[in-house]
Parts: sequence; structure tokens; C-alpha cells
Amino acid sequence: MQNRVDEILGWYESDHPGVLKNLRWMMMTGNLAGTGKFVILPVDQGFEHGPARSFAKNAPGYDPHYHFELALAAGCNAYAAPLGFLEAGARKYAGKIPLILKLNNSDSLFSSKNPKPAITGSVKDALRLGCAAIGFTIYPGSSERNDMYAELRALSEEAKDNGLPVVVWSYPRGEGLSKAGETAIDVCAYAAQIAAQLGAHVIKVKPPTNHIEQDAAKKVYESEKIPVATLPDRVKHVVQSAFGGRRIVIFSGGEAKGTDEVLAEIQGIADGGAFGSIMGRNAFQRPMADAVKLLKTIQDIYRKAK
Amino acid sequence: MQNRVDEILGWYESDHPGVLKNLRWMMMTGNLAGTGKFVILPVDQGFEHGPARSFAKNAPGYDPHYHFELALAAGCNAYAAPLGFLEAGARKYAGKIPLILKLNNSDSLFSSKNPKPAITGSVKDALRLGCAAIGFTIYPGSSERNDMYAELRALSEEAKDNGLPVVVWSYPRGEGLSKAGETAIDVCAYAAQIAAQLGAHVIKVKPPTNHIEQDAAKKVYESEKIPVATLPDRVKHVVQSAFGGRRIVIFSGGEAKGTDEVLAEIQGIADGGAFGSIMGRNAFQRPMADAVKLLKTIQDIYRKAK
Amino acid sequence: MQNRVDEILGWYESDHPGVLKNLRWMMMTGNLAGTGKFVILPVDQGFEHGPARSFAKNAPGYDPHYHFELALAAGCNAYAAPLGFLEAGARKYAGKIPLILKLNNSDSLFSSKNPKPAITGSVKDALRLGCAAIGFTIYPGSSERNDMYAELRALSEEAKDNGLPVVVWSYPRGEGLSKAGETAIDVCAYAAQIAAQLGAHVIKVKPPTNHIEQDAAKKVYESEKIPVATLPDRVKHVVQSAFGGRRIVIFSGGEAKGTDEVLAEIQGIADGGAFGSIMGRNAFQRPMADAVKLLKTIQDIYRKAK
Amino acid sequence: MQNRVDEILGWYESDHPGVLKNLRWMMMTGNLAGTGKFVILPVDQGFEHGPARSFAKNAPGYDPHYHFELALAAGCNAYAAPLGFLEAGARKYAGKIPLILKLNNSDSLFSSKNPKPAITGSVKDALRLGCAAIGFTIYPGSSERNDMYAELRALSEEAKDNGLPVVVWSYPRGEGLSKAGETAIDVCAYAAQIAAQLGAHVIKVKPPTNHIEQDAAKKVYESEKIPVATLPDRVKHVVQSAFGGRRIVIFSGGEAKGTDEVLAEIQGIADGGAFGSIMGRNAFQRPMADAVKLLKTIQDIYRKAK
Amino acid sequence: MQNRVDEILGWYESDHPGVLKNLRWMMMTGNLAGTGKFVILPVDQGFEHGPARSFAKNAPGYDPHYHFELALAAGCNAYAAPLGFLEAGARKYAGKIPLILKLNNSDSLFSSKNPKPAITGSVKDALRLGCAAIGFTIYPGSSERNDMYAELRALSEEAKDNGLPVVVWSYPRGEGLSKAGETAIDVCAYAAQIAAQLGAHVIKVKPPTNHIEQDAAKKVYESEKIPVATLPDRVKHVVQSAFGGRRIVIFSGGEAKGTDEVLAEIQGIADGGAFGSIMGRNAFQRPMADAVKLLKTIQDIYRKAK
Repeated sequence: MQNRVDEILGWYESDHPGVLKNLRWMMMTGNLAGTGKFVILPVDQGFEHGPARSFAKNAPGYDPHYHFELALAAGCNAYAAPLGFLEAGARKYAGKIPLILKLNNSDSLFSSKNPKPAITGSVKDALRLGCAAIGFTIYPGSSERNDMYAELRALSEEAKDNGLPVVVWSYPRGEGLSKAGETAIDVCAYAAQIAAQLGAHVIKVKPPTNHIEQDAAKKVYESEKIPVATLPDRVKHVVQSAFGGRRIVIFSGGEAKGTDEVLAEIQGIADGGAFGSIMGRNAFQRPMADAVKLLKTIQDIYRKAK
Repeated sequence: MQNRVDEILGWYESDHPGVLKNLRWMMMTGNLAGTGKFVILPVDQGFEHGPARSFAKNAPGYDPHYHFELALAAGCNAYAAPLGFLEAGARKYAGKIPLILKLNNSDSLFSSKNPKPAITGSVKDALRLGCAAIGFTIYPGSSERNDMYAELRALSEEAKDNGLPVVVWSYPRGEGLSKAGETAIDVCAYAAQIAAQLGAHVIKVKPPTNHIEQDAAKKVYESEKIPVATLPDRVKHVVQSAFGGRRIVIFSGGEAKGTDEVLAEIQGIADGGAFGSIMGRNAFQRPMADAVKLLKTIQDIYRKAK
Repeated sequence: MQNRVDEILGWYESDHPGVLKNLRWMMMTGNLAGTGKFVILPVDQGFEHGPARSFAKNAPGYDPHYHFELALAAGCNAYAAPLGFLEAGARKYAGKIPLILKLNNSDSLFSSKNPKPAITGSVKDALRLGCAAIGFTIYPGSSERNDMYAELRALSEEAKDNGLPVVVWSYPRGEGLSKAGETAIDVCAYAAQIAAQLGAHVIKVKPPTNHIEQDAAKKVYESEKIPVATLPDRVKHVVQSAFGGRRIVIFSGGEAKGTDEVLAEIQGIADGGAFGSIMGRNAFQRPMADAVKLLKTIQDIYRKAK
Repeated sequence: MQNRVDEILGWYESDHPGVLKNLRWMMMTGNLAGTGKFVILPVDQGFEHGPARSFAKNAPGYDPHYHFELALAAGCNAYAAPLGFLEAGARKYAGKIPLILKLNNSDSLFSSKNPKPAITGSVKDALRLGCAAIGFTIYPGSSERNDMYAELRALSEEAKDNGLPVVVWSYPRGEGLSKAGETAIDVCAYAAQIAAQLGAHVIKVKPPTNHIEQDAAKKVYESEKIPVATLPDRVKHVVQSAFGGRRIVIFSGGEAKGTDEVLAEIQGIADGGAFGSIMGRNAFQRPMADAVKLLKTIQDIYRKAK
Repeated sequence: MQNRVDEILGWYESDHPGVLKNLRWMMMTGNLAGTGKFVILPVDQGFEHGPARSFAKNAPGYDPHYHFELALAAGCNAYAAPLGFLEAGARKYAGKIPLILKLNNSDSLFSSKNPKPAITGSVKDALRLGCAAIGFTIYPGSSERNDMYAELRALSEEAKDNGLPVVVWSYPRGEGLSKAGETAIDVCAYAAQIAAQLGAHVIKVKPPTNHIEQDAAKKVYESEKIPVATLPDRVKHVVQSAFGGRRIVIFSGGEAKGTDEVLAEIQGIADGGAFGSIMGRNAFQRPMADAVKLLKTIQDIYRKAK
């Protein structure tokens, strides 16, 4: 199975071996080790949505150690969080699981039509904490997007120079887009492309709907008959949009919902050829045993996918 | 034929030999080697217009390797793209064709009356990827133009210091101009002059129309009887406007269109004394064989031009 | 005659000898060598007004070498231009005539009530190109003026540290002033004072009219009976306003006009005790022989002035 | 034939694409283009042995342009020289042939039992002059060797970071070795290994004799029956000693001698599987026509070699 | 006559225009302006030999202003001295004559078999004092030579980057050489070559004797029948040794001696094709009128030389 991992690493041909080492670490960790597939646990909701909205439902989640334990118990490939959460467990769990330090985050105590996250960590932090990668969020569609791209460019250059891969959360939002446009298929595909062109190694997008936001795009989707009816169709298109499949594209789970709903969505994503899922609230807001069970079921879906 | 190349290099008299080396590399590559003429393949549309609008028509173009192959098969002088596309092939194709790293790019998920691209790459990236030049876009006419000029100045200084030439896309747009004004002859000529004064080695502009945008300019065009009736007239004037022909000026192909239309336009551009074309969508949106044929026909037109 | 040059250099008592060396170079060059008077050729109009408006009337001027040749043939003290124009001839003409690199410039494709030029060159550029001075434009009266002053301050500090004098184009404009106010005598005098206080070695202003823009100033001009009726009166007042004559103040020629008009204006400026003229469009838009003749006649006027 | 070049480039798997670009440039230049074999012209003897000893025999060689012309006429892969010689022709010949800037050199006006060259150039020089690589000499066997290794390490790090390959002249000498030991087979093989371990991309050693210098080595050569009787045997062993053939190893021509002697030695070197020769005095001390003929004959030998 | 100056500047093809500007300044100054010949006044003997040995014979020479006056009165191309002497007059004489700041100097209060000068000035000093060049002394033959070469390399890089030419005093001495060897023809020629390879623009050596110091060299001088019998022969050989005449080589006057002796030696140097002389003690130790007369006579000799 390592062949698939080597194949994927071969796509990152301009990077230092140190970057490949960390990508391999993530791909050789957990229940999906060796498959080239990913299930990542992200816990940035405390910062993004506030503590009660994030952790009250499953109170052990207030404790940062809880999420390391969850990610380990569930056999995830990696655990992603902001600075404070990682600092609070990085010694105890040092080397037990690949960590992704999210270098920017948005809180919800101020809202803007054109959001832009705060820089909350550094490449140096990622190195001292023993992380496997840095994470960074961009908001295509925001009037502030160019500043985010420029910040990502600089952090990315530094990360790559130090052997760290770059995971980009590419989440369209802002004045340039309607609410429906944030998950429109044309916009999701475009968001994946932007992250790839900015040099991301791993790209995280939201599952796309069949809405098409931009008129200029609509013409092409129609004239070229790009299939976007089903979720697998759309996921396939998004993966293709990230360099014809030569970049790792994973999908977020979105809002908390019922297990069946979650699994149905994952099945669609997996059938579309996605490289995996990043599953936060649907994991850590369940009791640990349930969460572990859910994540393992998801891993099974990806293992069985083509 | 190398005499013409030496003559052109002689114009760049204040530059390090390293800059001349890379200019020569571009001028001694591909089917136009030694003629001092250029056909360059640029593929930044994935970032600028989105993936479906760019690549759906000819789906192999989603894969970054495709464009290296196309540029090589068609005997282009160079291939220009943003960071991600070049990183994805720079090792496999190292040294096979001169690369131009575009250091700024705009996406279309937010539109502004006064656009300004994001910085998406660095001179250091260009050196590690083995590029022959950096590329940079300015939007004269935008209220943000001065920031772009200042960014270009700083990147240009660093590039020249390290032996890298500077290719400037000078594309007028923004509140200062009407839509027709973006390709007006006076504005195109002015855009070429601005790029030259900012120290560009190679200047890329759009084919100008016979519209004259600015009243103050109109008076002069009329009183001095500057011929702008035909495309060759206008191209000649734009080339003259870039230091009396002492800078390399090439023209973009613009929107995708029919082969006959493309070739008629190229003939006009070549007749006007242009140094060549930069041909993106009209190349990579055709099947490879067609694109190669088209690009070779274009090269023939430039080879036969005076 | 060198006595006058030494006297002038004596005013710049806090500057490094390297700055004085370059000031002397300008004052010992051309037909006015040794007189302490200046006729400088500036050619930034290609950037400021566009190529056709600048060069169509005398087409050889599209070629950057032309202006080096003109400045040499006419025996000017120096030639001032933006980066691109100087780079294009700096090796061929190295050391033949003092060069002034203009470090900021404005184009006319966007207009603003409160203009501010773009930074287009560096002190490092001036050193590598062998320039005798840097040039910088400020727009007193613009809401952006303080940024310009701050940019000038920083560049000035670096230039002086490296032995380069600072030539300031002090051109009042912006929301703070009426159109007539831009050349009002009180405003011109004030503009000269600001440039001097910012540490300029050579100050370039426009010939003032007898309009008085500011009420607070008007009261003083009337109560103190400052003579402003004639051009010599006004020039004398502007020169006095630049540290009682202890700074070099030169006057621009403004728009292209007839020879008699030009010479009459120069006579007035010279009679007022100006240190010279900077003559762009009225020089390079004439055929070379006419321009040389005109510039020599102007030099004669300054030579004969007290 | 490019397959062989790609195969060789594949060995340098930790380097930036920019380094591979320059290695490819050397391997795709001259009469041996595409074969993976090298004939390089080095002219550092003016510095190393003095001008008369170097150039009196063929006086046009006093002129730095001569050696650019010779390398071009003979179809060499590259031309290597110290700073002064390259500066004197880098503009005229910009981009015509890959240049290797030797960053350290020894003169012969002081001799030491433990020699160490002076640092005479920088990576920045190599970039501004448009070089394809840096060159550096180490003297294993000298008490000063560790300083040379440390200097090489630092320059190498900077070169690789900027996309420049590193060519190492590994010439054993110093108190640690007998005179015969300088070319002993065990010492030559060891010198190749040291250069490879220090990160060299291209390694230049002297043709080894069958002398074995070190007792500890002698035991192994005897017990393992390493064949060192013939020059091909010994060359094969040296190439093997540079990472089992995964590094480019080329051999110097040594002192000037007769054509037959030179060709016989080259045949032996080629038969042993060497990647080529670096041929200085035996080239530039002959009249140009003879030198070109000799170098082409040498290239033929390498082309025919396995 | 400027043609000769342009021809000489053409040899320095890798340098910034700023370097050429300063070389032209020296070549267009004084009585030899435009000839490409040099007579330079150096006064570093106060530091090198002590004040009484240097200035007692002609006591006005204790005053630093004296030497500026002498260089001006005698129409020299430049005046070279250590930091203190230049600081003491740089403002008064700013721009009147090109200055060469000697960046290293040796005193005589400690003597060493292997001398090495102290660093006594900086490139920044040269810029603030308005110098036309930096000067630097190397002692080939000293065990410390490599440190001097490395210091020169670094200062040279900085000087060239800032538009300042590099004048190298290449004076063989130290344990590697006999006393006679310091001016041996083979050693002088070698010293010129070393300076040229280190990137010097102007090279100063001592007039060579017909002694040949090194056995390896002797063989070549004899076998190649290099003429070294007369001073013109030897000078010709030294000039040839500095890149076949593509570098400016000037000769020192050596110890104070009688006028006839001086002039005879200069005649020999000039007949050999030297670019000029640097004349210290034989100038400033004479009364000013005599010194001026002598220097003008020397200039006449160079003007009449081929």
C-alpha cells in the first residue's frame, strides 16, 4: 500500500525532502495508514464559535488533552488546532500523532462582511511544538482576500524552507459572493484551484452544492456539460480542479448533524474520489466512544473507496 | 541569426550579465530561437478566471504537467504561470524550457472597480524553481496602481540583483478608464511606456483598438497625425512608445476565438513590428495537436515578419 | 569663477563631502560650469503625460539615448529622468553628464483630487547607475502630502549617507488649493520653504503668478508690502523664501510654448536671481538643433544675470 | 539521449529544481549534449601558476575572451575560471556557454606544507554573472582541510538555496600525505568520497596511480582484491567511491603533455566509466585549432564509451 | 580622444554603470584627460614610513591640504591616501579631483616576515567622502596573503555594488620570496595577474627587474624566449599579464631619486605600454614647483607614448 503513498509524494516534486517526510508521516499514521486517504480531527471551534457552542454538548472537550486522546483513539491521520490547544498537550503527546498548527483563526465577537482571520501562530511555533504541518485559512470572495493570500505566501515560503507542509482551508465568503455562493460548485472548485496555485500541499474545502454562482462560469458548465448533479460528480470536479488530482483535497463535515446524514455525505464524498475528510464538531461533540465509532466507520468508507 | 539576439541584448545596458543570460536563454529556445521573436505560453487563467472556465474545454489542461508538455511540443520560448503550477512540474521539466514565475495574480471571486492583484510568489521562489524570469501585472488606471508600481519596483530590484529579467503585464483597468479605454491606442501606448520606465525588460500589452481615451492625448494624435487606423499602425506606435523600440514588447491574444481570427490578428501584430505574442486560452483550450499547429503557424508568421 | 561654486557649496555645511562632490559635479558641467547657475534637462513626461503627448511632436525623443545626446549637445548641467530612461543609457553615457534619478513619478491614467506619486526607484539604483543626485516630487496641498514628506525624508537620509544630493520638485496641488493657488506667489514661496526645511539641496518650483491664495498670507503680503507685481519680484521672493538664498532654487518651464514667450519668462526668472531653469518639453519637443539653440540662449541669459 | 540526462538528474533528489536546471544546462550544451558526459575547460592556471607559465606558450590566452571562444569553438559543456577572467567576458558571452565561477584559488608565490586556497568570489558574484555553478577546491591531507570543508559547506548551502550546483576540485595534498600519495588510488577514491559527502554535485579528481598510500587501506585493497592495476580499473573504483556511481565524477588532465599521451590517458579514463574530463593546460596552451581538434577527439572518446 | 576612454571602459563589461562613471571621471581629469593614461599622486607614506621620513624633506607636506593642492596644480588624474588625510581635506576640495581612499595600510613600528596591512577605512567612508575609487594593498608572497585576498574580495564586492572602482596595489613580499624576488619580472607579472583575477579595475605594480625568481617560471621564460632584457620589454610583459592588456596597469615610482633617473625610468615604462604612473615620494618630497614640473614632464612622456 505504500506504493500509493509514494505516488502521492511524487506529485510534490519541488519540495524539500523534509516536507515529504511530514506528508508521509500523516499518510502512515492511524487506521488509514498507507492508503493515501485522510481523516483529520480539527478543533478550532473554541476560537471560531466560542467555548459553550463548541464544548458544552460534550464537556470533556473543554480539556485540550481530550482531543489528542480522541484523535489517537480514533486512529486519525492528524490533529489540527490553534496555538493554545496544541501547546496544552504537545509535550505529553509529543510524537504520538501528527499535529497541524493553525496559524490563523477568526473569532465570532465581531462580524464583517469581508472577514479576515487573525494570525495566531508562527512557523517557529510549529517547529518547537513538533508539528507535521501548518494550517491556514483563506476566504476567497472577501475584499481582504489579497492580504490573506500574501500572508499565506510568506508563511508558506517559511514553512517549506523548514520542511513543513502547508494545509489550506479554502473557504469562500465575503461581499463578492451570495450566501449560496459560498458552497456553489463553481466557487468550491475555484477555491481549490486558488489554494493549489498558492502552493498548498493539502487543500480543505466544503462539500459543494449544485448551485452555480457566477454567470461566466455557468456558461461553461453548461456548454461543456460538466456533471454536477450528484455529490460524487461535484467532488470529482473539485478534485480535478486541484491540478487534475495532483494535490490532496479533503472535505469538511460542516455543521453537526445526525450520524446517518454524516455517513451519507461521506459516502458521496468518497465516491467522488476525495482524499478524505476533516471532521470536527461531528466528532468531538459526541461522547468519545460514539465519536471513535463514527470516525472508524468513516475510515472504512474511505478504505473501500476506489 | 544570433546577431539579432546580441543586438537586442545590447539595449539592456545597465543590467548584470546574469540578466542577459536569461534573456538570451528565452531568445535561443524553441522554434523562434535566434530570431529575437517570442511566442510565450501563459497559464494563469486557473487563478484568474477559475478552473472550469479555463480547463473544462480541454480537460487535460487541469493537469499542470500538460502545459509544460504543450510549451515544449509547440516550441515556445517560455512558459509563464503562478507558483502552484510551476512547483507542480519544475523538477520533472527542470531546464527543459525557460519558466516565468508570475509573482502576482487576481482571482475573480471578488471584483473591484479598482483592482489590485495579490502577491503570490517571490524572487526566492523563482531562483529555487530555476526560472528564467519573474512576471508581474500592473493595472494602470486603478486607484491602487501606485502600490502595484511600488511592489514591482522592489521585486524588480531584487530580481535584477540576482540575474533575473522582469516581464511586466501592463493591463490598464480601473476607475480611471472607460471599458473601451482599457484597449484604447493612447492607453496601450501609455501602459507600455509606464512598464518601460519602471524598468521592465519584456512588456506585455493587449492589442490596441483605434479608440482614443484621453482628450489631452486625442489632440496630439490628431495634430501630429499619428496613424492609428490599422492594427499594424497601432502596434508600431505601441512598440515605439516603449523606448523607440529598445524594449521587447509582446502582445496578448485575448479571449478565445476562431483560428482564422487569431491568425489575422497575429498577422497584424507581426506586421506592426511586435516582438511576439503571449498566447494562453487560444492555445491550451484547444486539443494539444491543434494548439501545437496553431502556435507553429503563429511562429511562422513572426519568422517571416521583418 | 569657481569662487561662486565654492560659496554655494559652503551653504551645505552639514553634508558629507560626497554630497558636495556631486553638487560641484553638476555646477562644473556644461556651458554654465563655474557660474553656480543651472540649466537641467528633465524628461519624465513619458511617465507623467504618456508617450504620444511627450514625444510625438519630435519623434526621436521616443528613444532614451536621444535625451542623453540632447543634454550633452546643449551643455546642460544635468539630465533628470525616471529609472527606465536612465537604465537604457547609463552604460553608454556613463560619466559623460550628471544624472538625476527621479525616485517617484505620477502617471495620468488615474486622476485624484489628492495626488501622490508612486515610488519608482531607489538610492541603490542611483548608486549603481552612477547618478549625481536623486530627485523626488512632493505635492504640498494634497491630503497625502505627509506621506510624501515622510518618504522623501527616508530616501533623503539614505541618499545623504551615500554622498548623493537631493533635488526636490515642490509642486503644490491637491484639495487644499484652488487651481490658481497652485502657482500663487504665497504658495510657491511656501513650497520652496517646505522643500528646504525637508533638507533639499536643490529646489524646483514653478514660476509664480501674482495671485495670493491664502487669506492669512494675504494680510502679511499687504501689510509688509512684499513686492509681487513683476516676475522678477516674485522670483526674488521665492528665492528668499528658501533660506534667504542659501539653497539652490530653480524654476520649471511649464507647458510647451513659443520661443519668445519662453525667453521672456526666463529673463524674468533670471532677473529675479534664480539659480536656473529646468526645461523639459520646451526642449525635447523641438528638433534637436532648435532645442540646443534655445538652451544655449537660456544659458546666456543666466550667465549675464547678476 | 535525454533519458540519460534525466537519469543522472534523478540522483540529485534533495536539490531544488533550480539546481537541476543548471546541471541540465551543462549536460545539454556542446558536442556531448545529451550524453551525460562532460568536457569542461578550466582556466585558473593564471592565478595558480602565474601568467607566463600559463599563457606564454600560446599567447592569445593572456586575453580572457580567448577562453570563452575556445570553449565555444570546441563545444565544451562549460568553462570554469576565477572571478576576474569571468567578469572580463561575462557580458559579451552572456548565456552562450555555462560558466563555473571558482570561488577559491591558490597562487604559487608562497608555498606551504599545508596549503589552503584564498576565497576569491561569492555566490552573489555567480548569480550576477549568470553562472551555471560554483567551483571550490579542497585539499584533503592538509592540516587546514577542515577550514576548507567548512567554507565549502557554507558556500554550498547558499549556492543550493539559489539554484546553483556545486563543483568540487578534490585534490589531496598537505602534510598528511607523501608526494606519491597525492594521486594514490586509495587517496583519490577517498577524496571523491569526501567531496560527495560534503554535498558536491560534480566531483573533479586527478587520474589515480596504482600506489596505495595508507596502510590501513592497503590491507583492504589486498584482502578484498580490489583491482587497481589498470587506469580503467582505478577510475571505475573512484567512480564507485563517489556513491556507487550516483555522483558525476570527472578527471583532470594534469600537466601539459603530448597529444598521444593525453588521448591514451583519456581512453583509460573513459573506459573506466568516468563522466568526463576537465582539460586546461593541454587545451589552452595549444594553438586554438589544435586545441579544438584535441577536445573534439576527446569528446568522441567519451561519446563512444559505454 | 574620448574614443580611447570608451574603448578602455568597454573592457569592464560586467560592472555597473556607476563603476564606469568613476573610471571615466579619473580618465577625464587632469592633463592626461582623454588619453586613457594616468598620473596619480599617492600619499600613504606618513602611515607606511612615519612622518619625518615622509615629510621632513619638504615640510609643507605635513599638512594634508598640501597634497590636494599638489595633485590639482600638477593636473593629476587622482589623489590616493588613507582615511585621515582624505577626511582632512575632503570638504574643501570636494569634487575638485578624484580621490582614492586606501582601505588598508601598514605601519613600520612592527616588522614581520609575513606582513599584512591593517584595515583602515570602509566603502562607506569612500562614499561619504565622495571618492572615485577604493584602494587596497595585497602582498603576494606573504603567508598572510589569503586573508588579504579575502578582505579585498569582500570590500570589492561592496564597492562594485555601490558604483566604486577598485585600485589594487599588488606588492609581492613575505617569506615566499627573496628580496630580489619582490621586483622580479616573473613575480611582478604574477602579481598583476593575481590582482586582475581578484577583480581589480586598476592595478599598481612596481617596475620589474630582469631577475627571475621562480625556477618553474624561469624554464618558461627561457623556452618561450619572453623578452625581459629592457624595462620596456618587461613592462610590456606585465601589461600583457593583466588580461592581455584589458586591465589598466600603472607603475609606482619607488624610492626617491634624482629627476633624470625618474624620467629615464618613466620613459621605459611608457615605452612598454604602461597606462601610467603613481608617483608619491618623488613628487611630494620635492618643493611644489619642482614637483609640478616633474609631474607635467611625466605626463608629457605618457602623452607622447603610443
